Amino acid sequence: MTRLDKQIAFLNEADKLKSVLRATTLADASRAENSAEHSWHLTLYALVLADQAGPDVDIDRVIKMLILHDLVEIDAGDTPIFENVDAAEVAAKEEAAADRIFGLLPADIASALRPIWEEFEAALTPTAQFAKALDRFQPPMQNLASGGGSWRAYNVTQDTIAARVGTKIERGAPGLWAYARKRIAAFFASAS
Amino acid sequence: MTRLDKQIAFLNEADKLKSVLRATTLADASRAENSAEHSWHLTLYALVLADQAGPDVDIDRVIKMLILHDLVEIDAGDTPIFENVDAAEVAAKEEAAADRIFGLLPADIASALRPIWEEFEAALTPTAQFAKALDRFQPPMQNLASGGGSWRAYNVTQDTIAARVGTKIERGAPGLWAYARKRIAAFFASAS
Ligand SMILES: [Ca+2]
Repeated sequence: MTRLDKQIAFLNEADKLKSVLRATTLADASRAENSAEHSWHLTLYALVLADQAGPDVDIDRVIKMLILHDLVEIDAGDTPIFENVDAAEVAAKEEAAADRIFGLLPADIASALRPIWEEFEAALTPTAQFAKALDRFQPPMQNLASGGGSWRAYNVTQDTIAARVGTKIERGAPGLWAYARKRIAAFFASAS
Repeated sequence: MTRLDKQIAFLNEADKLKSVLRATTLADASRAENSAEHSWHLTLYALVLADQAGPDVDIDRVIKMLILHDLVEIDAGDTPIFENVDAAEVAAKEEAAADRIFGLLPADIASALRPIWEEFEAALTPTAQFAKALDRFQPPMQNLASGGGSWRAYNVTQDTIAARVGTKIERGAPGLWAYARKRIAAFFASAS
């Protein structure tokens, strides 16, 4: 295999992310969203909501994180936010997936890209925390647009949303959580 | 409407790109690809094939172009590469679409993002030419993976592929056209 053969083999493998379905739907509720189009939507969130990032956030790197962040789901599947899972088990599955999937690339490219995914997963830097905040902020925006989406499917309360979603949005993008919390409260008030 | 309301209105409108279908299929030929997941795939192409770009190419800006490049299809639809269309008519439709869609954003964000799309469309800079090359290179890679895809649907010849796709790939990423041409020739040799 030539270098380009390996790069294309990785890109063909990545195509499978278009068939990984999420708990959220499209805004028009017509079907489940897949993780590839979700990843694209998040990169657009980063471009459009860059003014919500703190001064230590590198938006170009946020975008790279969001392009790569769900690739491991090709092997490990999507973990719905409101499902109760064994976090250590999910993390182990995702590490194995990263080994296999980044392993398809020429070594120098894998060494450049995998640390971007690792930084996102660890969520210790302002850049990763902002990327994580967007990843948690987009699903409630989809649910508000579609009339409930995964909130109805999982029958969740505002407290659960605040715990599962709010804490991570607030850590990376406090202005977005202030906005989302208000809109979520209005949605639940009108739905009850 | 607050500033954030406008940003979210734009992001909700962008969701519609997930329902714009292309002539190419997924690599497993299971269904048509949509323009949102196609845009994500292209951003990954940019990350993985950055070594094919010339020294004057700004990869971070290539990625931004690829995130934005198909948004106008929400109003104007996708123009299949092998269909014969009135280019001036398509361009006029896409300009009107850009007016409406970028017009949903706060003015300062629209002024930052629309020129990135305009630069891509004009294809006069090395950065835009590399982004265009990737946009033309991914469909043949999908067709090779799926066993023919839009080549079979439109019954095209290698000469047509070279004219419609090859010239633009070669201008922005000559190494990728050399690679694609060889693989396309092998595909047609084995398929005939
Ligand atoms: Ca297109």
